[in-house]
Amino acid sequence: MPLAPRFDNEFRASFALLLAWRRDVRRFRRDPLPDGAIERLIALASLAPSVGLSEPWRFVLVEDEKRRQAIRRNFAAANAAALAAQAPERAGTYAQLKLAGLDDAPCHLALFADRSTEKGHGAGRHSMPETIEYSAVAAINTLWLAARAEGIGLGWVSILEPESIATILDVPREWKFIGYFCIGFPEAEDDTPEFERLGWEKREKPSLFLLRR
Amino acid sequence: MPLAPRFDNEFRASFALLLAWRRDVRRFRRDPLPDGAIERLIALASLAPSVGLSEPWRFVLVEDEKRRQAIRRNFAAANAAALAAQAPERAGTYAQLKLAGLDDAPCHLALFADRSTEKGHGAGRHSMPETIEYSAVAAINTLWLAARAEGIGLGWVSILEPESIATILDVPREWKFIGYFCIGFPEAEDDTPEFERLGWEKREKPSLFLLRR
Repeated sequence: MPLAPRFDNEFRASFALLLAWRRDVRRFRRDPLPDGAIERLIALASLAPSVGLSEPWRFVLVEDEKRRQAIRRNFAAANAAALAAQAPERAGTYAQLKLAGLDDAPCHLALFADRSTEKGHGAGRHSMPETIEYSAVAAINTLWLAARAEGIGLGWVSILEPESIATILDVPREWKFIGYFCIGFPEAEDDTPEFERLGWEKREKPSLFLLRR
Repeated sequence: MPLAPRFDNEFRASFALLLAWRRDVRRFRRDPLPDGAIERLIALASLAPSVGLSEPWRFVLVEDEKRRQAIRRNFAAANAAALAAQAPERAGTYAQLKLAGLDDAPCHLALFADRSTEKGHGAGRHSMPETIEYSAVAAINTLWLAARAEGIGLGWVSILEPESIATILDVPREWKFIGYFCIGFPEAEDDTPEFERLGWEKREKPSLFLLRR
């Protein structure tokens, strides 16, 4: 067994900066990712925790332009429905938000969780089968940080109709759609979420969401 | 706006090591965490992405010994049910797995996702309300890495009955239980998951779970 690494204060400070400067990116430059970058990021993401070592993440690189167009149409329809559901006093602001970088991002990645996998032999899933989905979320969160450490941005698109996405991408019915991700070099970097900069919402003190029992 | 940080090759290599040496820990030393450590880790976790900046994570530090005992009993019952559901040829091995560090870990943390929060004004949730839960998962995955960078281990306990946990911890009904986490200093460190060391399951090549469409 190799010697366990020690992480020093300098690394921890840089890691805290990585967390603070990770962003949900919606404005991308069009330059492609470097060769091999997405495969390397997916390999790092695969070090994420998974329930019972089930590794239920299923990454789908969406390269076909017709499929990308279908995704864009699905987003437009889902976003129109989401706009219609906004309170009247916020609808005008909502309509002006840029919520996805589907036109410019060079890399489109969809993520599914395979609920039917027998990998892991059911360990940890019996009373909480949703841990399969949670494992896939841990993988994309890991990928997000690894990407940011390379200067690569990611934007999570959830304004989509999950059943339609599975159809567009022709994946098995047992795969649960987790999210669609635009990946590429960001136009700009920031330590403040766009939702906060635009006044949509602000972050609270972490202590507000900590209870003791 | 502060100047965006640059992450160099040395940081990226250390971050890859952090991912490789993160473990699901079930064997803890009994020493308490340093003062302020859990609050600091929760503050870092709160830098995680959340849908619409909804920050739906609700951290519950479980300090009361009677509640901890009730959690242990719930685990024992859920684990007995999970054992009964194992295939006969694997049940003997399953029974020997140590799946939680509830007796020794000095810090017990439960995590819920508040589905009823109006924070974020619904942005990103209309067609995929489960993104509320996914945001909480991103927070705990972030906390896990931040803890490991300080030499602190975390074990995710999912062998629990979610409704009962919400009752034991007396939290609002709208809060969805995400997971229960044992946190403390690990007895040992390793770069290989315990499930893999014990022959329960092995990791596959990441490329196996990557498709192109």
